[in-house]
Amino acid sequence: MKAIVFDNELKLDKNYPKPVPQKGEALIRVTLGGICNTDYEITKGYMGYVGILGHEFVGVVEEVNGEDKSLVGKRVVAEISYGCDDPSCEWCAKKNYRHCPNRHTLGIWEKDGCFAEYMTMPTNVLFEVPDNVLDEQAVFVEPLAAACEITEQLHIEPTAKVLVLGDGKLGLTTALTLQAQNFDVLLVGKHQNKLDIAKEQGVKTQLLNTFTPQKIYDVVVEATGTASGFETSMALTKPRGVLVLKSTVASGKELNLAPIVIDEITVLGSRCGQFAPALRLLKNNRINFKPFITKTYSIDDALEAFEANKSKESIKILIKM
Amino acid sequence: MKAIVFDNELKLDKNYPKPVPQKGEALIRVTLGGICNTDYEITKGYMGYVGILGHEFVGVVEEVNGEDKSLVGKRVVAEISYGCDDPSCEWCAKKNYRHCPNRHTLGIWEKDGCFAEYMTMPTNVLFEVPDNVLDEQAVFVEPLAAACEITEQLHIEPTAKVLVLGDGKLGLTTALTLQAQNFDVLLVGKHQNKLDIAKEQGVKTQLLNTFTPQKIYDVVVEATGTASGFETSMALTKPRGVLVLKSTVASGKELNLAPIVIDEITVLGSRCGQFAPALRLLKNNRINFKPFITKTYSIDDALEAFEANKSKESIKILIKM
Repeated sequence: MKAIVFDNELKLDKNYPKPVPQKGEALIRVTLGGICNTDYEITKGYMGYVGILGHEFVGVVEEVNGEDKSLVGKRVVAEISYGCDDPSCEWCAKKNYRHCPNRHTLGIWEKDGCFAEYMTMPTNVLFEVPDNVLDEQAVFVEPLAAACEITEQLHIEPTAKVLVLGDGKLGLTTALTLQAQNFDVLLVGKHQNKLDIAKEQGVKTQLLNTFTPQKIYDVVVEATGTASGFETSMALTKPRGVLVLKSTVASGKELNLAPIVIDEITVLGSRCGQFAPALRLLKNNRINFKPFITKTYSIDDALEAFEANKSKESIKILIKM
Repeated sequence: MKAIVFDNELKLDKNYPKPVPQKGEALIRVTLGGICNTDYEITKGYMGYVGILGHEFVGVVEEVNGEDKSLVGKRVVAEISYGCDDPSCEWCAKKNYRHCPNRHTLGIWEKDGCFAEYMTMPTNVLFEVPDNVLDEQAVFVEPLAAACEITEQLHIEPTAKVLVLGDGKLGLTTALTLQAQNFDVLLVGKHQNKLDIAKEQGVKTQLLNTFTPQKIYDVVVEATGTASGFETSMALTKPRGVLVLKSTVASGKELNLAPIVIDEITVLGSRCGQFAPALRLLKNNRINFKPFITKTYSIDDALEAFEANKSKESIKILIKM
């Protein structure tokens, strides 16, 4: 089968062996995948990963290795981590597989990814896509779930002032998700065309160069992935407020963490999320991801797709398998 | 009067003007003061502060400028920050003066400190010292309150595994305070003689060089004040656990904050605390600070006292006014 593989270099392998579902797994024919910045980081060496890339997808179950065949023929998405399922594992007991110390993570850690014609995943992390949700929306469920993760971890009071810093796909998704949950959210970024995507769906937006920083926000979400964005976020968080760290902050700069202590700020690391609330948002048409799609490439043009993803002008690049 | 002043250099001023209490303030004859590392940082330029140093003290009220004279003659301590008390200030309304944007902080920010024969403070931040608490214990109330601050900010479950990293006065005070609140606490540090102070009061202790780091602690308190201590603390905090940052982390090192996101760690900045719970611990003899006292100097030997404070062997240096 065709697969987009990283093994010291990024390549399209046209003869990758088709995977065989193990006990408890489904074989999925992938229809659509989305490139995440983590995929790009992996091609620069992140996690030391080697294998098929990709963790954002939608596909159709062709086969299940197990007694319950009810998923066969269904359109599905999958939470990207699965655990050891050992009865002694506190994380697997809570179905919070992303913190299981022996986890596998699709296209990131010890598990071939979804940028291929076929993939396998355990059925206990698969979710059926509601009929009214198009593939072009469903393929966004993983980053949408990551945005929903914030309110899984943190009680945000409805009167809180919330600011999202950064208008890349992470910042846009986060701002739209918080908006969809009825919070008072302001998105600040550098690109008017990207801000407009959120603005058209009701989010208040502001260009960074016309924005007067004030230490008045109860919750600030750092979504720039840069050290300077982290420092700006500290300066915007009011005393005893919460700075949500959604992306791995670029290092290469000395960070002064003193404001965290002086203002008693809480820095909350936040990563992947559960799919059920994300699918509910999609089913209820609360966010439209269509304006995110910069271009859809065929898997045959995978290298070109990855190249397009590097551009500052791109938001989301999709790949048709 | 005699006063220990920092004004580009540290000096003993023998003719500093005796302060005059303003409306709502008390004049306090200081009996005993304690040197904090913040005082030392100020002598290196921290906060750009110029004036009388010191914020840890016990003293006796000699005079009150106001109608209620009930504090005259009483032994007192004082919370170190007072606010604008403007009715529109949300922080002053909550008596949480340390976050008032127009606050004054004793010996740190726009308010002469306590290392002098006399000082003034607003009566609304003064607390009477219980009769059974000696001056040599009461002088520790400010750092003790800072340790109590952790449980003001954070709900620690009684079954949580708590680790305090660093056996300086901050780490010792924090470990003893958490122990006094019945938490399951392990103190890890580099100095057997310092660890023994906590051990003799019931805290589990471990030398760093015999300690096997494991990512199993629900709450880790960073009390080393170093960047490497912060990194070790990240490595000890279990997924979704809390890293309490009690001291301004030394910069000068590139910090990789990725573990915060990957493990969804909460970093909680924690500073000063309220005095009532700290005085309760002292009144009930739950912590004995006597073993902390390395030496007590006369104010006449102030420079020598500050010199002694620099030694790694010192824990707490006191100054008699």
